[in-house]
This record gives sequence, C-alpha cells and structure tokens, in this order.
Amino acid sequence: MSDAAQLHQQSIIIDGLIIARWDRALFEDMAKGGLTTANCTVSVWEGFQATMNNIVEFNGLFHEHHDLIRPVRCTEDIYRAKEEGKTGIILGFQNVHAFEDQIGYVEIFKKLGVGIAQMAYNTQNLVGTGCYERDGGLSGFGHEVVAEMNRVGMMCDLSHVGATTSQEVILASKKPVCYSHCLPLGLKEHPRNKSDDELRFIADHGGFIGVTMFAPFLKNGINSTIEDYVEAIDYIVNIVGEDCVGIGTDFTQGHDQAFFEWLTHDKGYARRLTRFGEIINPKGIRTVGEFPNLTEALLDHGWPESRVKKIMGDNWVRVLKEVWDE
Amino acid sequence: MSDAAQLHQQSIIIDGLIIARWDRALFEDMAKGGLTTANCTVSVWEGFQATMNNIVEFNGLFHEHHDLIRPVRCTEDIYRAKEEGKTGIILGFQNVHAFEDQIGYVEIFKKLGVGIAQMAYNTQNLVGTGCYERDGGLSGFGHEVVAEMNRVGMMCDLSHVGATTSQEVILASKKPVCYSHCLPLGLKEHPRNKSDDELRFIADHGGFIGVTMFAPFLKNGINSTIEDYVEAIDYIVNIVGEDCVGIGTDFTQGHDQAFFEWLTHDKGYARRLTRFGEIINPKGIRTVGEFPNLTEALLDHGWPESRVKKIMGDNWVRVLKEVWDE
Repeated sequence: MSDAAQLHQQSIIIDGLIIARWDRALFEDMAKGGLTTANCTVSVWEGFQATMNNIVEFNGLFHEHHDLIRPVRCTEDIYRAKEEGKTGIILGFQNVHAFEDQIGYVEIFKKLGVGIAQMAYNTQNLVGTGCYERDGGLSGFGHEVVAEMNRVGMMCDLSHVGATTSQEVILASKKPVCYSHCLPLGLKEHPRNKSDDELRFIADHGGFIGVTMFAPFLKNGINSTIEDYVEAIDYIVNIVGEDCVGIGTDFTQGHDQAFFEWLTHDKGYARRLTRFGEIINPKGIRTVGEFPNLTEALLDHGWPESRVKKIMGDNWVRVLKEVWDE
Repeated sequence: MSDAAQLHQQSIIIDGLIIARWDRALFEDMAKGGLTTANCTVSVWEGFQATMNNIVEFNGLFHEHHDLIRPVRCTEDIYRAKEEGKTGIILGFQNVHAFEDQIGYVEIFKKLGVGIAQMAYNTQNLVGTGCYERDGGLSGFGHEVVAEMNRVGMMCDLSHVGATTSQEVILASKKPVCYSHCLPLGLKEHPRNKSDDELRFIADHGGFIGVTMFAPFLKNGINSTIEDYVEAIDYIVNIVGEDCVGIGTDFTQGHDQAFFEWLTHDKGYARRLTRFGEIINPKGIRTVGEFPNLTEALLDHGWPESRVKKIMGDNWVRVLKEVWDE
C-alpha cells in the first residue's frame, strides 16, 4: 500500500456535502472511497411533511444497509463509524424551507438527526435569499431561526445563499457557520463562487469553508481534473489558512436529468434558475470511490501529512463539535 | 408526616393517562401530588403535522417549566425525575391517526419521545376501530403498525379501542399492550368499560391495566368518592392479580366545555359520539394535587405497602421497561 493510501485509510475522511442517489451502490462506493462521514442532503424544495418522508426513507436505508452506514448525531458517532468501518451519515438540508413558519421545527429535525441546514437554496425563502436572485438579507424571522439553530446545535450553511444574507448570518450566529461546498470566485466568475473577501470574512468570524469540485464552477468545467480541485483547495487555504477548510464535494452520483431539472428550477418546478449542462466530475475523482486519490493529490501537491489530515476531515470534526455543543 | 404520606413520597408514582390543559398551574399540581411520571396525551384527532405542532408546543413547555417537568424517553428517566424532584412526561397518543398512512412515522414519533399510542380513539381509523361503533377488527395495515410499534418500542394502548380490535392487537403484539385507563364493566355497564373476560384476556397475554376514575364510567357517576375508585382498582386486582395493574386517572384538569365537545365528536367536529355531562372527579381525588390521598385510601383499604407501591407506579415501570426494550 502506498503512503498516500495508508494515510487515507488511517484518517478521518469527511465529505461536507453529498446529494447523490441514496442506494446500496452508493454506500458501497463510500466504503470503497474510505469515507468516514458525509453530510447527506434530505431536503431542498420539500416542505415539512415531504422532508419528514425523506427522513423516513433514510431511516429505512439505515436499517437496510446497517452493514455499510450509520447515523451521525454527534462527533463521537464519527469515531464510531471509523471504528466500525462504516460511513457515518449526517442528515442535512440545503434549504430551511422545511422549517416552514415554525421555529419549533428546528428542534424537531435536530432530534431526528439533522445536523446542518442551508439558510436558502438559490432563491428567497422565509429566512433570506439564495445566490441566484436579488438578496434583501436575513429576515426578522431569519434572525430567530439562526438563534434557534444556535441553541439546538444545527450548523448554518451558506453555500447557495446570497452575499447579503450570508454576511448577516455570519454576523448573527453565535456559533461557527459554513460554506459547506463552494469554490473561489478568484478562479472562476460564477454566482455560486465566493470572492476572496467573502472567504476571508467567514474565516475571520470563526466560520468554515468546505471546497466543492462541481465542474460547472471550476475554471476548466467538465474538462477539469483532480489537479484543478487541488488548486482550488490550495487557493482557499492560502487565503484563510489550513484550520478552517475542509472538503464538500457535492457528489450527485446516480441522479438522472429529471433530478437536475428539479434542482435548477425554483421550488423544483417554477422558473429556471440555471442550466448546468453536462455534469462530469473532475478526472481522478469522478466517483465517491475515488476519494483516496484526493489524499494522494494533496500530498503530491507538496502538502505535509498534517495539513492533508486537517483538510480531509479533522477540521470538519472540530467545527462540528463546536456547533453541536459537545 | 403520616405513614401514608411518607410511603407516597418515597414511591415511584405513575399516572398512565392524563389529558389535562398543559400549563404551569398543572405542573405545580403534579409536584404537589408527588407525581413521578405521567403519560400525557399530545394527539387525539390531529393528523401528522398538527400532532407535530403539539409536540413543538410541549417542547416549549419542557424549556419553560424545566424546574417542574422533564421528558421521559426511557425508564431511567423516570428515576432521574424522582431524584430531581420533577415530574417526568411520557408523550402519548390516544389515537394513531397521526401516523396517517406512513409506517415510518412510528419511528419518527418514537424518536421525538412518544412512548405509548392508543390504536384508535372511539371510532374507526386506518388501523382498527374504537369502542363507540361497530368494530371490524385490526386491519392489515394495523398489523403492520403493531409490528412496527413492537420494533421501535412504543406501547399499544387499547382503552378506547373496540373489543375485536383490542383482542386482535393483544394477540398480534409481541410486547405487552395495555388498557392505560379503563374501568370494569362488572361495576358499571358502559361502552368504555371492560368485561371480566377482557380484563383476564389482556392479563393472560402479558398485558397491563391502568385503572381510571373518570366519573361517567364509575357506578356512582359524579357522586363518586375516592372509595369508589379504590373499589374499582380492587375489583380488577381481584381478577388479574397485583402485578399487572396500575393507575391511569384520565385527569382532564383545566379544560373547558369546548375541549370536551371536540373530544366527544368524531374527528373533533363530525357526529356526536357521546355526552359526558358534567365532569366531577371523585371526592378526595378531584385534582392531580390530591394524588397522595390515593396511596392513603389504598392503605386504608387494608392493602400491604408492597401492593400499594406496585399499583401506584412500580408495575408501570416494569412493563414500560419491557416494551421500551431496555
């Protein structure tokens, strides 16, 4: 076994955002990729009850595939997953739309395993506005939701959130917040990418940055390779240091075109917001199973093992421990 | 302090059914009554989301009145409540209508603290039929719900359930089931009261009987006294022995007439099912705060302390431990 493979196998590997098709093939690929834990999206456009149905479905997956996955509700569960050789699953939202108009639903979902929630997905909701339309900032209700997420220990994610709402959440939150999956605007101009100032701002306020490799946001698009991904990670580490950066791939493995049509329309069916075109992950990390290549590529980039381990998972564990009040 | 008062204070006191108005006055009365834990109804006619809203409301009460009450999710929590001098609250349903058509909702509610659920409330639902109409027995879906309640550890309650459905749940369940709050037909003819054969049947199958004191079901109605309640408890103990009987008062303290109108109409608003008339609890135990009188009345009845302790709480703890898989 190569040194890189050995390091990967020994490390805690965290993926801050996956929105793949949840099935055994994926969970087997997670095992192949040596993934210790992933934040898995169970709500985007769904309201309260439809989101509950998604959680019910995931509870079924936990039972059916208990040899491969386990729920993660605290960082101790991440270490348990590592010991058991399983992939831990943090349930996550990419939109707080599922809270509807009830602050009390935050605690309900937290009790059901939801550890991270994005404040808006591309467009406006009751809390704030996404990054694909004019952004009037965090609403009054949004301030109450942030406070409640702080109280119950649910991380505020800002990846798809507009710049103004993001800034106001960063200032309002008493716990670290994150861009769970983003790329730097400095490498490619895109509404989803974050400027150097934005990256510095979240880091300066104790926040966290997960780096994605979603091809449409990388400068070389679908011709990107794992080196482009490493370049983006390195770019961000050069701005904010090595202690508040992690991985957030945004793997969409297994989904068909209908799913992307749903994602790219407001509410899942209304006006079109964007067009991804063909989605091909960077060469070298096309599938979750290729995760070990990323550890290798970071080492090849000349990084010390200590930094690789931080970025590949240890940093996520530290920040989650803080947010989850352990 | 009298011997009775001392025994009451030292004992675990469990009330298997309360459907009072949840407010600080009630929780203070629970403290006055020395109540260790109560099964508190949070769903009768409500569907899934409205029941969630009731749980949200109760979560708010847990925060606001944390000096008086605490959630009970396992029997260890009952002992913690005793130590802390608080009243433990088991969230309970008087109707599985809140599961709607989703078996997966059973686990969702269990995770949110629902430890007991009645299979039907007076009328027919997807699972079976209540005691106020023709009862066609446990449905196919009902069999699946019983199995799921067994699996996740949620007790099947049959108090308001029809005779046929009750019998079929008793036979289908692999865990003990209960009449959480019932009275014997042998003392008064009433659709809600259980025959000697029914009492024997549930006990012979490892089940449990909580005895209520709801005046309309007692032979002396609103002129009843705590002695009438003791007579009913004694009647049942004489049939099934002293190990599977407990208390289930059905206190409705604090509710107004509109609440009883809602309870006594199918779905809360449809045809009238029954008319309670004036509700006055038996003299001597009119309010939760008078709970110590019951320990005293049972001792005065000539019962040994050991039996009093079993009926006042220890039996409930044993059966809940079994159902909750601890």
